[in-house]
Amino acid sequence: MSIKLNNGIEMPIVGFGLWKVNNDTCADQVYNAIKAGYRLFDGAVMRYGLLDYGQLRSLTCIDYGNEVESGQGIARAIKEGLVKREDLFIVSKLWNSFHEKHQVEKIARKQLKDWGIDYFDLYIIHFPLAIAYVDPSVRYPPGWEDTNGKITEINAPISDTWAAFEELVEKGLAKSIGVSNFHGQLLTDLTRYAKIIPQTLQIEHHPYLSQPTLIKLAQNKGIAVTAYSSFGPQSFLELDMKEAQGAEPLLQHPLIKKIADKHSKTPAQVLLRWATQRNIAVIPKSNNPERLAQNLDVLSWNLDQSEIEEIGGLNKNLRFNDPVNYGLDIYMYTG
Amino acid sequence: MSIKLNNGIEMPIVGFGLWKVNNDTCADQVYNAIKAGYRLFDGAVMRYGLLDYGQLRSLTCIDYGNEVESGQGIARAIKEGLVKREDLFIVSKLWNSFHEKHQVEKIARKQLKDWGIDYFDLYIIHFPLAIAYVDPSVRYPPGWEDTNGKITEINAPISDTWAAFEELVEKGLAKSIGVSNFHGQLLTDLTRYAKIIPQTLQIEHHPYLSQPTLIKLAQNKGIAVTAYSSFGPQSFLELDMKEAQGAEPLLQHPLIKKIADKHSKTPAQVLLRWATQRNIAVIPKSNNPERLAQNLDVLSWNLDQSEIEEIGGLNKNLRFNDPVNYGLDIYMYTG
Repeated sequence: MSIKLNNGIEMPIVGFGLWKVNNDTCADQVYNAIKAGYRLFDGAVMRYGLLDYGQLRSLTCIDYGNEVESGQGIARAIKEGLVKREDLFIVSKLWNSFHEKHQVEKIARKQLKDWGIDYFDLYIIHFPLAIAYVDPSVRYPPGWEDTNGKITEINAPISDTWAAFEELVEKGLAKSIGVSNFHGQLLTDLTRYAKIIPQTLQIEHHPYLSQPTLIKLAQNKGIAVTAYSSFGPQSFLELDMKEAQGAEPLLQHPLIKKIADKHSKTPAQVLLRWATQRNIAVIPKSNNPERLAQNLDVLSWNLDQSEIEEIGGLNKNLRFNDPVNYGLDIYMYTG
Repeated sequence: MSIKLNNGIEMPIVGFGLWKVNNDTCADQVYNAIKAGYRLFDGAVMRYGLLDYGQLRSLTCIDYGNEVESGQGIARAIKEGLVKREDLFIVSKLWNSFHEKHQVEKIARKQLKDWGIDYFDLYIIHFPLAIAYVDPSVRYPPGWEDTNGKITEINAPISDTWAAFEELVEKGLAKSIGVSNFHGQLLTDLTRYAKIIPQTLQIEHHPYLSQPTLIKLAQNKGIAVTAYSSFGPQSFLELDMKEAQGAEPLLQHPLIKKIADKHSKTPAQVLLRWATQRNIAVIPKSNNPERLAQNLDVLSWNLDQSEIEEIGGLNKNLRFNDPVNYGLDIYMYTG
């Protein structure tokens, strides 16, 4: 099952998200996911170095930094004839420190090299945030801090970054391009000057943060929506995020469990189907072969419309993936 | 009492808001407000023509459309020697239908002519929304609809509109320029390419919608914040807005009343002081001479820090001035 993007390309509606997939298991996980039927892989650069910041100061890193290993898993599957490159839909993202127009192609080419491929199916502006460049020879993945150990915002307008993205498409380095973590006002402004309207918008989306007007706005403009963190607080518990600890886990939520029982599905499946049934793509991850298969099972069953609405009623505008929640003084979500 | 803007100009921290001031009383109200000590007047173009839209379909108009009369009140006060032009701080706004670069100066000059002045102290982009141009000879103020009776968004990027605003400053038609109803992401992007960082951001701000991160972001960037609708639901009750009807009135809220009693002030004064004490300008309006004076009384007393926080604790992200609440399919606030 797929979503037809505004450029005619089909994007799988369920993919495998590479956030917090460990380097040592990553290649195997990707390979096994392909075996299980996954065709879309959602990666990124980042890897935070937050030793000196806020509530996450005990963590040396929280993420990604696994494009090389992801590529290894893919290469193995292709080599063994499980899939061809063109069967896959490989997604990666531009990190905040590469927003300047002249940095985009350079880093995209490096990322492609890391993956061992020659084009991305989808390349996304990760955040509407531009921070100081760190040369890959100095530190890679760069994370948040500049070479002085500070987070420094720079004046690279989104219009510059987007123009460079459009060039990636012209050069065949990306088939589709999109954005992530954009609010409606900035997304709307982008569509006013864009030669290529973004194919996708990737956002945090779960019953506690359902963002219905943002989704309507994007879908009305022909921009497909991908949900991340479909299980809500789950992903953030292992980061010791207090906002996640204070929230009722969605996988044990009585309403989600009740609906899961009724359909003989798992709560995770209910949460994913709640998105996909509204044409929103999802990118869960799992190590467990059974759950990998379950997460893909979005064609054989449907939620009732009333159930979709009941789940939507859990919305409380509770956002987890906000730099402020990581102790950073970056005010990106000011609704 | 005033706020020093990032260009060195002082802006009064309490002004008189002209929204929903009737045409027949407007000149007198402005004149009386000047007598009462007001120096800042906050006007705009708009005047909605919403006959065919949503829940407000019974209203022929909701607003402003009183720049001529405001100017008459000012002219009378100047003529009588109550004030000089340079004692006043006159604010107006660019309506959505004039966002195209080549329209900005033309309409600003028309607005100045209506006011009978030759510069604005502050000229603001009213909304981050660009809709189809309606020629003033066809309908003025234009409201929302194009000449076909539809609301049509157009592709005028904010960067174009802002460049035209910067020219207004160069030409002396506006001393300061700002924006209104912008979220943090779009405001941040504007500051990346702006030659002139906005002097002010005007937003809906009251205890039910306190937007602390947006205010921090703006103030960190040296952008002064002006609050509108300081009394929360109050202004929207007369528009029969159901979101306002469902909210507990702030002027009768037990916490606000308790704090008002303690300081021997009115609830309105508490709500205004709650903003001004955090260096946020306010623009209430009143017909009542006593209340006009009370609203200006922001120097003789202070709230305790704990009271400011208690009032902040009423926040529930409840926004009234959202096009969606007027029945329009315009998704501007997608937090």
